[in-house]
Amino acid sequence: MRRIITLTTDFGASSTYVAAMKGVILSINPAAVIVDVSHGVEPQNIRQGALTLADATGWFPEHSIHVAVIDPGVGTARRIVYAEINKQHYVAPDNGLLSILVERHTPARVFAVENPQYWLPAVSLTFHGRDIMAPVAARLSMGLVPAKLGPPVDRLESIPWPAPAKGADSITGWIISVDSFGNLISNIEGELLLGLPAETLKRIRCGNREIRGIVRTYGERPAGSLAALVGSSGRLEVAVVGGNAAAELKVGIDELVEVSWGPVQESIAS
Amino acid sequence: MRRIITLTTDFGASSTYVAAMKGVILSINPAAVIVDVSHGVEPQNIRQGALTLADATGWFPEHSIHVAVIDPGVGTARRIVYAEINKQHYVAPDNGLLSILVERHTPARVFAVENPQYWLPAVSLTFHGRDIMAPVAARLSMGLVPAKLGPPVDRLESIPWPAPAKGADSITGWIISVDSFGNLISNIEGELLLGLPAETLKRIRCGNREIRGIVRTYGERPAGSLAALVGSSGRLEVAVVGGNAAAELKVGIDELVEVSWGPVQESIAS
Amino acid sequence: MRRIITLTTDFGASSTYVAAMKGVILSINPAAVIVDVSHGVEPQNIRQGALTLADATGWFPEHSIHVAVIDPGVGTARRIVYAEINKQHYVAPDNGLLSILVERHTPARVFAVENPQYWLPAVSLTFHGRDIMAPVAARLSMGLVPAKLGPPVDRLESIPWPAPAKGADSITGWIISVDSFGNLISNIEGELLLGLPAETLKRIRCGNREIRGIVRTYGERPAGSLAALVGSSGRLEVAVVGGNAAAELKVGIDELVEVSWGPVQESIAS
Repeated sequence: MRRIITLTTDFGASSTYVAAMKGVILSINPAAVIVDVSHGVEPQNIRQGALTLADATGWFPEHSIHVAVIDPGVGTARRIVYAEINKQHYVAPDNGLLSILVERHTPARVFAVENPQYWLPAVSLTFHGRDIMAPVAARLSMGLVPAKLGPPVDRLESIPWPAPAKGADSITGWIISVDSFGNLISNIEGELLLGLPAETLKRIRCGNREIRGIVRTYGERPAGSLAALVGSSGRLEVAVVGGNAAAELKVGIDELVEVSWGPVQESIAS
Repeated sequence: MRRIITLTTDFGASSTYVAAMKGVILSINPAAVIVDVSHGVEPQNIRQGALTLADATGWFPEHSIHVAVIDPGVGTARRIVYAEINKQHYVAPDNGLLSILVERHTPARVFAVENPQYWLPAVSLTFHGRDIMAPVAARLSMGLVPAKLGPPVDRLESIPWPAPAKGADSITGWIISVDSFGNLISNIEGELLLGLPAETLKRIRCGNREIRGIVRTYGERPAGSLAALVGSSGRLEVAVVGGNAAAELKVGIDELVEVSWGPVQESIAS
Repeated sequence: MRRIITLTTDFGASSTYVAAMKGVILSINPAAVIVDVSHGVEPQNIRQGALTLADATGWFPEHSIHVAVIDPGVGTARRIVYAEINKQHYVAPDNGLLSILVERHTPARVFAVENPQYWLPAVSLTFHGRDIMAPVAARLSMGLVPAKLGPPVDRLESIPWPAPAKGADSITGWIISVDSFGNLISNIEGELLLGLPAETLKRIRCGNREIRGIVRTYGERPAGSLAALVGSSGRLEVAVVGGNAAAELKVGIDELVEVSWGPVQESIAS
C-alpha cells in the first residue's frame, strides 16, 4: 500500500540505524514511500527535532506518517505516542517532540503505543525507533486503525518554548536555527511585525550589530551587507547577502535578536 | 504518474528546505520518484552546481526532470527557466547553472517559468525552490506541456568557464572538483591528451609536485604514490593511491594542473 | 519490476558518483526502489564497509539486492562477485566486504561477475560501481538469473577480523564503531557475557576509565555518567548518558575494551 512515511532522527545520515529502520518498514510494507526529513538533528536535541517537524512535515500530503526518533529517554518510562495533528500522523516518543505542532493545532487523536503485537517480536532497550516506531508506522501505512495501538492519551508532554518578549517599543526573541547559508533564523514570527512603524525605521540587533530596516529579499541589499528579512519559514532572520551571517557575527542558536522602533538612543557599529 | 524528479541544491542534506521541496512535489504528484543528486553543493556556488548537473544528470533515464536550486539571486529579477537539453528536462534559475550542459548540447526548448498558475498559491521571496520550482517540476511530471510555463527564451545565461590553455608542448588547466577520496579532478578532458607523445613521457605538475606518465588505473602504482589518470568523469585527475591527494598536496579547487611533453629542463621533487 | 536495491559506498552522500549509480540503475529498471544504506563509510575502509553491511542489510526484506562499493582495488585483478547470503543478494568487489556476513551464514551461491553483456557498454577502469555493479544489480532486480553473471566461486576473500580474546576472568575486545551519539561500540557480542558473574560485579575498562556493572539501558544511570550496556546491535558498548563517550574518553575505533570479573586489584578513576 503506497503511503508516505517520513523519518526525522538524530542518527546522522550515514548511520546504519537509519538503514535498519528503513529495512524494517519495507519488510512490513514493501510499497511504503520513505522520505528522509532529516537525520542531522543535533544528538538528543528535542527542541531542534520539534522545530524540524514543525517546519517540514506540513508540506507533505495529508495523511502522511511522520516518525521522529530523538529519544534520549529510550528504555525509561517515557511513552511512545501516535498523534494525528492537522491531518498528519506522527509516531514519536512523548518527550516534547510534538510540542510546537500541538501549539498550532489541537491534536485530533492521540494514543499511547503500548500494544506489542504491532512491534518487532524482540524489542531492544536502546533502539525503539527500529523495534517499535518503525513497525508501528509501517502497519499504520498498511491501514492499521490507530486506536488499536493503545489507550487514548489526554495530554502530550511539552518542552519550554517561550514566546518572544514584547516591550513597548521592542520585541526580543532568539535564534532558533541556522541554515546551510549561515542565515540566523529567529523565533520572531513575521506576523508579530505587522502594523509596526514603517519598515525603514525598524532596528534589528543581533550579535552586537545593528541592522536598519527589514527588507523583503536578499537582493535589496548589496553583497556582503547584513540584512534582516522574514524568511521562507515565516520568521525573522538575519543574513549576510551572499555570505554567512553565523560566521561573520559569531552568533548561533539561543542568542538574542531584538527588533526595536523607539527613538534612537545610542549607536552600535552597523 | 511515475516519473523521476532529481534534486540538486546547496541546502545541506539534513535541511528542512529539502524536505519541504519533497513534500510539495509529493503533494502534487504522489507517484513521483524523487532522487537526491546532491545537497552538498557549496552555498551559492553556481559553478559547482553546474558541474554537478553536468556530471550526474546524463546518467538518468531520458525525460527525467532535474530541479536545481543554487539560487543566490532569489527574489531579484533573475529568471527561472525550463530547458530541455539532451532529452533531459531541467528547472532552474537562469544564472549559469545550465552552462556546462548547454556547451555540450544545444537545448531543444527553453521556456521562462512565468505563469503563476503552476506555482504554490503563496510564493515567498526567498525560497523559489519550494514555491515555484518544486510545483512546476511536479506538474511537468504529471504531463504539463512545458510551453504553458511561459514564453520561449532565446538564450540562457552562462558563467565563465574557460577551456584549458594549450601551448606548443603543454596544456594548462585547473582543478574543478575534489571527491571524497581527495582525488583532484581537473578540467582537462581525456580526449585532449589523445595523440600526444607516448604516455610515459608526459609530465603532470600539480601543487609543486611532478608526476611522470599517465596511468590507466590506480593499481598501476604502489600504494602511497602519486598517480595521474583519466578518471570516471573523463577528465584528468591527480590521485594518491590509497591516500588523499588533496590533503597530501595541499591542493584544492582552482589550482593549476599542467601537462607537458617537451624536453625536461629542470626537475621538481616527484 | 519493483525490487529493493540498497547502496553502501565510501563516496560521501553528496557525491555525483552516487547519483550516477542511481541513474544507471533507474535507466535499466525504472521501478527499482533504491535505498541508501550509507555513503559515509570511511574512504577505502573495507572493514567498516563489511560491518555496515553486516549491521544493516539483514533488516531488509528477503531477496533485496545490496550493492557495496568500497573498492580500493578497482581496475586491478580483484574480482567482482554476486553472493546470496542468508536470503539477501550482494554485489560487491571480492575484497573482504562480505567477510562478516559470511562468518555468520554460509553463502548459498556465489558467482564471479565476469560476463560483460550485463554491464554498461563502456566500462571505465576506475568506477566499476557505476559501470558494472549498478547495471548488474539492476538486471538482477529485473529477474536475471545470477548464474549468467559468470562462473561459480568457491571461496570469498576475507579480511582479518579477530574475535575478542577470552581470559580466565576477562574478555578483551576493541571498539569497532562510533555512532552519532559518540557511543563506543565494541566487537564483544552480548552473548559472550551471558553466564558470567552477577552483572554488578563486572568491570569494564575503556580509555583509562573503569565502569562497574553492565546496565540494560541508558536511563539506569544519571545523566553525564559512564555506562556499559549491550546495545541495539547486540554488542557491548560504552556510553555517556546524554553525552558523548568518544569525546569524553578520547577513544575511537581500534582502542581496547576489557570486561573483567576477577578480584579487584587496583583501581582506576571511574
